[in-house]
This record gives sequence, C-alpha cells and structure tokens, in this order.
Amino acid sequence: MKRAELVSQIRAKGTYLCVGLDTDPVKIPEFLHHENDPVFEFNKAIIDATLPYCVGYKINTAFYEAQGLKGWESMEKTVNYIPGSHFRIADAKRGDIGNTSTHYANAFLKVLPFDAITIAPYMGEDSVKPFLQFDGKWAIVLGLTSNPGAADFELKELNGGERVYENVIRTVAGWGSTDSLMFVVGATQADEFINLRRIAPNHFFLVPGVGAQGGSLAEISKKAMNGDVGILVNSSREIIFASSGKDFAEAAGLKAKGYAEEMKNYLDI
Amino acid sequence: MKRAELVSQIRAKGTYLCVGLDTDPVKIPEFLHHENDPVFEFNKAIIDATLPYCVGYKINTAFYEAQGLKGWESMEKTVNYIPGSHFRIADAKRGDIGNTSTHYANAFLKVLPFDAITIAPYMGEDSVKPFLQFDGKWAIVLGLTSNPGAADFELKELNGGERVYENVIRTVAGWGSTDSLMFVVGATQADEFINLRRIAPNHFFLVPGVGAQGGSLAEISKKAMNGDVGILVNSSREIIFASSGKDFAEAAGLKAKGYAEEMKNYLDI
Repeated sequence: MKRAELVSQIRAKGTYLCVGLDTDPVKIPEFLHHENDPVFEFNKAIIDATLPYCVGYKINTAFYEAQGLKGWESMEKTVNYIPGSHFRIADAKRGDIGNTSTHYANAFLKVLPFDAITIAPYMGEDSVKPFLQFDGKWAIVLGLTSNPGAADFELKELNGGERVYENVIRTVAGWGSTDSLMFVVGATQADEFINLRRIAPNHFFLVPGVGAQGGSLAEISKKAMNGDVGILVNSSREIIFASSGKDFAEAAGLKAKGYAEEMKNYLDI
Repeated sequence: MKRAELVSQIRAKGTYLCVGLDTDPVKIPEFLHHENDPVFEFNKAIIDATLPYCVGYKINTAFYEAQGLKGWESMEKTVNYIPGSHFRIADAKRGDIGNTSTHYANAFLKVLPFDAITIAPYMGEDSVKPFLQFDGKWAIVLGLTSNPGAADFELKELNGGERVYENVIRTVAGWGSTDSLMFVVGATQADEFINLRRIAPNHFFLVPGVGAQGGSLAEISKKAMNGDVGILVNSSREIIFASSGKDFAEAAGLKAKGYAEEMKNYLDI
C-alpha cells in the first residue's frame, strides 16, 4: 500500500488504529478450541468485528512461530484474510546480513502479502536496504521501543551527545524515502515525540504500547502527528482479549470503536 | 547441550566447525528438484557427509521462511534429523518485548529442538532474558557482526569512549552465565578479538564469516580461543555449495574435512 492510499484511508475512516493480532492460543475462548484452526477462527472473527474502526493489522509472528508448522499456517491464512484496503504489518523484527535479509524480505513482502515488516537496525545499512526494494512496501525500523530494556542501549548517549536511537532514526532515514520507511516508537516514550519529530518530521511512526503497556493516546496524538497524520497507533491485547466469552469479537469491536471515536477528535477532519 | 558436553565434543573430535545450512533452493543441484522436499533431501545428504567433521549446524531461518509453509516444514524436518551429539543453532536473530520474546524462545528452544538461537540485542534486557530460562539451552547475542553495516551502529563510540558493541557484550554478559550465553563475532573483525577477550574472556563466540565473507581461520583461532576453546567457527555457502553436481555432498564433506584438519592444528590436543 502506497503512502497516499494509507493517508487517504486514515482520513476517510477517521481512524489511525492498527489492531495487533498477538493471538496467544491459551487466551482464545474455550468454545473455539474444538475448531480445526482455533487461531485462524479467532482472528477471522476479530478482523470482521474491527474492520470499520482500524486501517491496519499487525501480526506478531512470535505467537504463530511458537505453534510450529500449524502456527505458520494460521499466519498465512490470517494475512490472506485481511482485505487489501487494510495495511498488513508483519511484526517480525528481522534483520541480518544483506544476502539473508533479502530472503526475509521475500518471505514477508513477496511470498506473503504483507505491506510492511518491522526491522531491527543493529546490523546497519546492508541489513535494512533489502526491505526497501519493493514498490508500495515498507520497512518499519525499530527506533525507540516501549519496553524497559529501551534504556539499556537505545537511550545510551553517543560521543557528541546524540543518543543511540536518535542516531539510528537520523541515519536510517537517509537510506530510504518517507514512502518506504517508517519507525517504531513506543507509546510509553511520549516525552521523546517532540524531539523525534525534529529528526524525522515526515515519516510515519508505528506506535505500539497504548493500552496494556500504559501509553496515552491523547498525548501521543498531540505530540507525534504531522501533516499526513503520520502515526499508526497499535493496540493488541486490550482489543483482541477484551472478553474471553462468546462475545469476544463483539467486545473487541467495541474496544476498537472506542479508540476510533477518540481518534476522530484528534484528527483535523 | 551443556557447555561441558560441547567442550568435550570439540576436544574428542578435534574440530570446532559449525556447518551453516543456508539452503537456498535455487542453488540446490538440479537432479534433486524432482524430490518431494528438495531442501530437506539436500540438507540430509550434507549432514550425513559432514557429521564427522563438525560439532554443530546453524540453520539460517530466512532461507526457510522465504519458502513459506513448505520451508518451515523443511526446517522442522532438518533440525529433527540432526543428531543430539551436534549443537543445533537457529540463526533467527530474534528479539522483542519480554512477553513476545518468551514466545520466540518457546518456538525454537521448546517446540523445535534447537540448542541455541541468535538474538538481536537492540531492545535490551527484557528482550534477551526469556531466552536464558532453559537448562542446557543458549542465547547467542549479536556482538560485532561480519557485514559492512557493522560500522553504522555497532562500531559507534559511546560517551565515555566505549563502542556500542563493546557496551553490548559487557552489559549482556551480566544477564546470564557462560553456560547459557554466547556472542556472535564476525570472522572479518579479527582485529577486535583480543579486545573482545578482555571484555568476555570465558564466553563462547559464534564466528561466522569465514570463507565466502573472507575471514581467516588461522587468525581467528589464534586471537579468540580461550581455555575451553571458546569458539564455534561457522562456514555456510563455501561448504554446502562446494559442488553443484551429483557429488555435492561428497564435495561438502571434503570441504568440511579440510576445515577440521586445519582446526586440529590450532587445538592444543
């Protein structure tokens, strides 16, 4: 999906919500367990219920890989079920030497129909560039993450005063355009957003960590939006596990609707 | 596999070679293409031919994921085919927030019978620790990689003079023991090994980049060994694609044997 289409979807629907399909099989409602593929049945119902309130879905590959072959199959079925009107993110945190990254890029952006994949930047330019070779596809590179471990390396200060994550965002921004690169910035890092917009004024940020991890939607929206909206805010557990009963999909839809209604207030439309 | 067993395998066999199964389907000999699972048939023959000359195998997950579901199946069959006498590494470069890393750890160290998985350190402590919770299993954390991109962030200097990769190795070393943590250090970084042994004298290093990427086995062995040998040297393409003919397995065996014979000279046995 190209940037212009993503922005127009956001404006048309009045939402920049991304629903995270962190589908942990042990949290799926009991009554789905007799299905042949409970993970896919769960995801299908969640997608059907949340489609009007979001512009994208983020599939956290770890939850699928933990189920082995069966999990990989559930993931394939899920990404193929999401309609092309919605932005499909593989939250896979890949990145390796160039030759290997090329294979990861093929895996997610060609073999599977994802629009984007999250990338760990540690190994530098040749580990990121293979993900930038596909028209209308995106690399979403880790900038400043939402977890406590962000303090260990990302927030360390480099010689000259710049912090590691600032240097990462500034450097990586030079490797691709705002049509193929986004950055992950955790919602728990709201204090950093104004500074971040100085470094990368025009890029989209994928913002996880709202909800279960504690970030505030109002604060992020105020500090991080740019002229093209420029943020996709992800919520996973809080939406998809809103209820563990027969009404799980309806409850997820309501939660997503709540986010979308709040977002409408922050959008200048 | 516990450290004592790994060290005793190395000493008994006189080799610290790890064979990298970067099995690119387009490079598999023509005559295997009619097989139901050419990747697995290729790997099986390579494993049979190289078993006496190596102590481990490293499966580069990207090459399997690029084949979708079928590739994941080939990977499962391959890791199950490698005998328990050999150290089995998932070269997967994973790492995410704690909750997600726990699922990756289960995927590779419990669901699949890998002994170790490679980890990207960018997201810090809670992204690494879930991989350290299994007795006799290992996290192999990226320290200084073999690719040109290593210069972009890993070699940057932090405030105070330490470089990023040095800080990563020193910090991560505090999160686990030398029985559960190794570091990736590229063979092309031979100049750094003496310095690295000051920071992490007792850890095992997984050293890729010998062969196709140009690192020297003699130099690495001299600079990086410790009292427990302390290095696993990986070669992938140079061994597994030594011949593209009917003799591909035999040629791989000969190449691995050549490495093992050279290694015997560097081992004090």
